[in-house]
Amino acid sequence: MSEILIREDAGGIATLTLNAPERLNALSDAMLAALQAQIDALSDDRETRVVILKGNGKAFCAGHDLKEMQAGRQAEDGGRAYFADLFARCARVMTGLIRLPQPVIAAPHGIATAAGCQLVASCDLAVAAEGTRFGVNGVNIGLFCSTPMVALSRNIPRKQAFEMLTTGAFIETDKAEALGLINRAVPHEELDSETHALAETLAKKLNSAVRIGKRTFYEQLELGLDAAYAHSGAVMVENMMWRDTDEGIAAFIEKRPPDWQA
Amino acid sequence: MSEILIREDAGGIATLTLNAPERLNALSDAMLAALQAQIDALSDDRETRVVILKGNGKAFCAGHDLKEMQAGRQAEDGGRAYFADLFARCARVMTGLIRLPQPVIAAPHGIATAAGCQLVASCDLAVAAEGTRFGVNGVNIGLFCSTPMVALSRNIPRKQAFEMLTTGAFIETDKAEALGLINRAVPHEELDSETHALAETLAKKLNSAVRIGKRTFYEQLELGLDAAYAHSGAVMVENMMWRDTDEGIAAFIEKRPPDWQA
Amino acid sequence: MSEILIREDAGGIATLTLNAPERLNALSDAMLAALQAQIDALSDDRETRVVILKGNGKAFCAGHDLKEMQAGRQAEDGGRAYFADLFARCARVMTGLIRLPQPVIAAPHGIATAAGCQLVASCDLAVAAEGTRFGVNGVNIGLFCSTPMVALSRNIPRKQAFEMLTTGAFIETDKAEALGLINRAVPHEELDSETHALAETLAKKLNSAVRIGKRTFYEQLELGLDAAYAHSGAVMVENMMWRDTDEGIAAFIEKRPPDWQA
Repeated sequence: MSEILIREDAGGIATLTLNAPERLNALSDAMLAALQAQIDALSDDRETRVVILKGNGKAFCAGHDLKEMQAGRQAEDGGRAYFADLFARCARVMTGLIRLPQPVIAAPHGIATAAGCQLVASCDLAVAAEGTRFGVNGVNIGLFCSTPMVALSRNIPRKQAFEMLTTGAFIETDKAEALGLINRAVPHEELDSETHALAETLAKKLNSAVRIGKRTFYEQLELGLDAAYAHSGAVMVENMMWRDTDEGIAAFIEKRPPDWQA
Repeated sequence: MSEILIREDAGGIATLTLNAPERLNALSDAMLAALQAQIDALSDDRETRVVILKGNGKAFCAGHDLKEMQAGRQAEDGGRAYFADLFARCARVMTGLIRLPQPVIAAPHGIATAAGCQLVASCDLAVAAEGTRFGVNGVNIGLFCSTPMVALSRNIPRKQAFEMLTTGAFIETDKAEALGLINRAVPHEELDSETHALAETLAKKLNSAVRIGKRTFYEQLELGLDAAYAHSGAVMVENMMWRDTDEGIAAFIEKRPPDWQA
Repeated sequence: MSEILIREDAGGIATLTLNAPERLNALSDAMLAALQAQIDALSDDRETRVVILKGNGKAFCAGHDLKEMQAGRQAEDGGRAYFADLFARCARVMTGLIRLPQPVIAAPHGIATAAGCQLVASCDLAVAAEGTRFGVNGVNIGLFCSTPMVALSRNIPRKQAFEMLTTGAFIETDKAEALGLINRAVPHEELDSETHALAETLAKKLNSAVRIGKRTFYEQLELGLDAAYAHSGAVMVENMMWRDTDEGIAAFIEKRPPDWQA
């Protein structure tokens, strides 16, 4: 019996692997619940410094579980309450990734479509296997990718997002990188090693600095310029008051490695 | 006698052709009125699924009609009331394109300058003839392109927008595509066919899904993350409740073409 | 004895040169004060039409002065009040560049890191020497670049900004240009001439138009679409009422050079 979401921990890096390959890792009720459970656990987890999100099988994630959604129509209200709950749970997972204290690196391969593309867009960073295809193609079945576009349109320019959303066309890794949807692509056989190398780079930083930085990054993005500076300036002051930051700066000045406690 | 704005309808695609080639399709009072009339008509038009906007003659559009603007100075107030009305009418056309229920594809060629560049930036999609030159060059005559920059700065990165606005320099299609101002460029002789192919791709989608998607796209762009998800989630629920979406998903699961009513 | 910030004026172009090469032009208290003094002076300066910001020595600017910051810890409150004041003064300089009536062109070379990278991001335009390295690498010493990211994340896409902030990795000019952090790169030996050529292009425009345009550019960026059009439309009306704009448009129509008074 295999779990739908596998978590492996090593060296402060938690790797979450979507594991429903026979359904292309669809975001079923069970998958969303498993993701939310891990997000909840990671929120309080001081040991984990970086999270990697990847998928088993042929595809990273093909979006929502359409059969399960169709079954939801059997309810007396035609599924309305179920769908409202479903999209709320899905948005909670997507914003949960953004609000996790740890940086989250998506490592997509194969295809990442609809809510699967949203998952990539919602992670802080993305390293993709070369040839991965990204799409928000719900429009092809009459279900416009309205929630995925919230994440997508905050990653890439608007005309390019609009084209993907209304044509349903896929883009590959070269274009995804040029547009800003992923940080870079690597050969598939190097996806794990490259993703881990990036995670290790982040894991070696002062953890509290990365955490306060990630939180502030998204907070200031939603503010006007003056409010953004007021907020981030206050964060800088807090950051400066830490013992480990004092040590980090002192070590840099003295050209020696820092002796961090955290 | 020729109309200043030609409308042709075929297969659910309305093609609007700016037709004042001797004035480089300037956005004169008459042209703005003709555009507004078509926008008003299209707002209630359930038959039209996609709109194409192109221009006759050497240029797509060279911006406002400067002679007409200068004539406006003869009024007692030096033109102030006329100019205020003019820019309000122009902004109504530009935002009208964004608020049209149908996707609008700009098909510029030759030059698209000042309010002509704004027109391209205000369309949802743009396919340009290779070699088209884009500029917001009002600064060269002492009239900074302050309204065009509203559209431009929502399409391309800010330093590049600032350079175009303050130097008045043109960019060509390669750069326009790299920056996000257009989706792509095609040889001039293929501009009509390529634009139509894109329009037909969109016209084949479930119309109501494209419409609700376009509206939500621009609405959520102006919201913070949580509000954007709350709004787009509610839209997804509505979309799921449609008969045609039910059919679209069922057809996909059963690997058959959908039998859509709309 | 040399000044920490050199100002040279010629042809309506003020060149500010960071001149603490032995400290890599760090933004020390003295440097921030000198920058603020020039910003204050330039705010009321009708003669100066364009500002260039560059650095003497090996680097454009390596960010805050870490030794000075560490010395601030000797205060009774551990430096808290000093740091709060420091980041407020720094933000005032950064937003001061944006609010200056004149366009500001950064001309970085060597390295531009942390608040030095923020300085580039805060200028309206940037022409860099080929090979210049940009980084927001405070994370490496435990001090996340929370204030620099306010400027950076308003210049480049978010995944790329997040990567720079959390890895501390440098990017070079090719990538900086592709992402939108700089307008372009030129050979180091041409940096002065190219920057001056751009400044001269701007200096030849109608000064009042450039000034009203710059101010409106940043104001409208923080507004929703309708408010942005209402504001910029009112600006266009004002701009149209100027004598020099009347003359600029008339000259264009008559195919002659404008006779501007300003």
